[in-house]
Amino acid sequence: MSARVLHWEEERSQPREEALAVEEPLEVRLNQRSLAIIMRTPGHDRELALGFLFNEGLMRSAQEVLRVEEAIDADGLPLPNVIEVTLRGSEAQAEPISSGAACQATFERHFAVSSSCGLCGKNSIADLLSSLTPLEPDKLRLRAETLYMLPEQLRAAQAVFSHTGGLHAAALFSLEGDLLLLREDVGRHNAVDKLVGCGLLQGTFPYREHILMVSGRTSFEIIQKALSARIPCVAAISAPSSLAVELAEQAGITLVGFLRGRSMNVYTHPERLLAAG
Amino acid sequence: MSARVLHWEEERSQPREEALAVEEPLEVRLNQRSLAIIMRTPGHDRELALGFLFNEGLMRSAQEVLRVEEAIDADGLPLPNVIEVTLRGSEAQAEPISSGAACQATFERHFAVSSSCGLCGKNSIADLLSSLTPLEPDKLRLRAETLYMLPEQLRAAQAVFSHTGGLHAAALFSLEGDLLLLREDVGRHNAVDKLVGCGLLQGTFPYREHILMVSGRTSFEIIQKALSARIPCVAAISAPSSLAVELAEQAGITLVGFLRGRSMNVYTHPERLLAAG
Repeated sequence: MSARVLHWEEERSQPREEALAVEEPLEVRLNQRSLAIIMRTPGHDRELALGFLFNEGLMRSAQEVLRVEEAIDADGLPLPNVIEVTLRGSEAQAEPISSGAACQATFERHFAVSSSCGLCGKNSIADLLSSLTPLEPDKLRLRAETLYMLPEQLRAAQAVFSHTGGLHAAALFSLEGDLLLLREDVGRHNAVDKLVGCGLLQGTFPYREHILMVSGRTSFEIIQKALSARIPCVAAISAPSSLAVELAEQAGITLVGFLRGRSMNVYTHPERLLAAG
Repeated sequence: MSARVLHWEEERSQPREEALAVEEPLEVRLNQRSLAIIMRTPGHDRELALGFLFNEGLMRSAQEVLRVEEAIDADGLPLPNVIEVTLRGSEAQAEPISSGAACQATFERHFAVSSSCGLCGKNSIADLLSSLTPLEPDKLRLRAETLYMLPEQLRAAQAVFSHTGGLHAAALFSLEGDLLLLREDVGRHNAVDKLVGCGLLQGTFPYREHILMVSGRTSFEIIQKALSARIPCVAAISAPSSLAVELAEQAGITLVGFLRGRSMNVYTHPERLLAAG
């Protein structure tokens, strides 16, 4: 998609065509109930819907999924920007609405707060780790050299897909540094959800021996998604937040930030990193 | 806040202290009902809560606010990370829960979808503009030179506040390019909500003769917030999304992107821009 813009340079302006990153709403329906509307870049919508549901804890495995498809209206015509996910067992229920309500309740679980203990990052992490177990210690080892090569691979692959400057990228690499999968989106969470949904659809999930690389910063939610996908290493061009670091530490994830040129910061679980030779 | 990291350069690593952007959850309660949990950088929490409620359409003016304060528990002790907002009239109601439920319904209004017409960006904009009127045409004029000076001012002001590389910034400038207000947050939407909340608390709102500058990209939601604050010009270092451009066009907002050095792209309403002389 492109837009006619007025390009100013110094005190002169002239019209120009500029490519734009596309942003459109997507409605995700679970068992015939509308669950969420996500602003996203169209494409890989089934992946996004499944990855979103999985990362929100509303489904636990690909086996639970009976159908994931574009919605149709009463006349059988396709409904644009609506993905319908049906989980096994849900079709037997007399009242789709009650199953939807149950999902809604699960969806709001993240938001339940016990006011007796107050609200803080530590509680958020404890809450999360009560439903999602940390990674087991493993013998996976990564060469620093492998990590140094990731940003350039990401940029080269991104150049193929986008010229808009408006897209976040998330990519999955093997532990040897091979680019396996790239997704781009106006929302950085969406790009990660698409990676996860792709693995669910293609049966290549979970990602126990992979590196997740994101183009921007690392927040609590990115690490939460990595943990639910069982990814042992998350690398980013920019900085992590304090809560991302705390969660990665407790979740057993190696968190790398400021991966630029031939340097990086390893915030947590540096034991997986190896020098050459 | 800082973390002990292992800084790698080439094949050598050594420990180092690195500053981290703080991320913590904040619960926003409206009329005694929990409404949302927002991951944010602590500080200016009352601003964030008010700006969030305003931008979500749950309150329309500062006059509606009876109280906005840190919550306390049953023993009168402060509850960290919880802000309680009470609107006028709500305390007279017998059932705080029902008022909360009404708010929840309003909150979900954005997510109502008519399946007869399908879901798309155009509908999202039409929905929004049915409750929020576009800006009236005005005679406001901005010099290109004024805009060119904004990024450097933003960077200089940011340097004072943050050394973490992990914070998004949003700033309010006068039409002459004077920096009036700066807020930083791990979430870019939060930074804008804080600016709006500050205006509500201090009675300097709406921002009819201001420029909003954001450090990153411009999405639909950023323009939505600018429109509800009645801001006539939004400028960003990076690219806007397609839906941000469409909304800005229809909302009467001048949208500037790729504001770097002495050049920029003007995506919508270029009539407010003037060359020197």
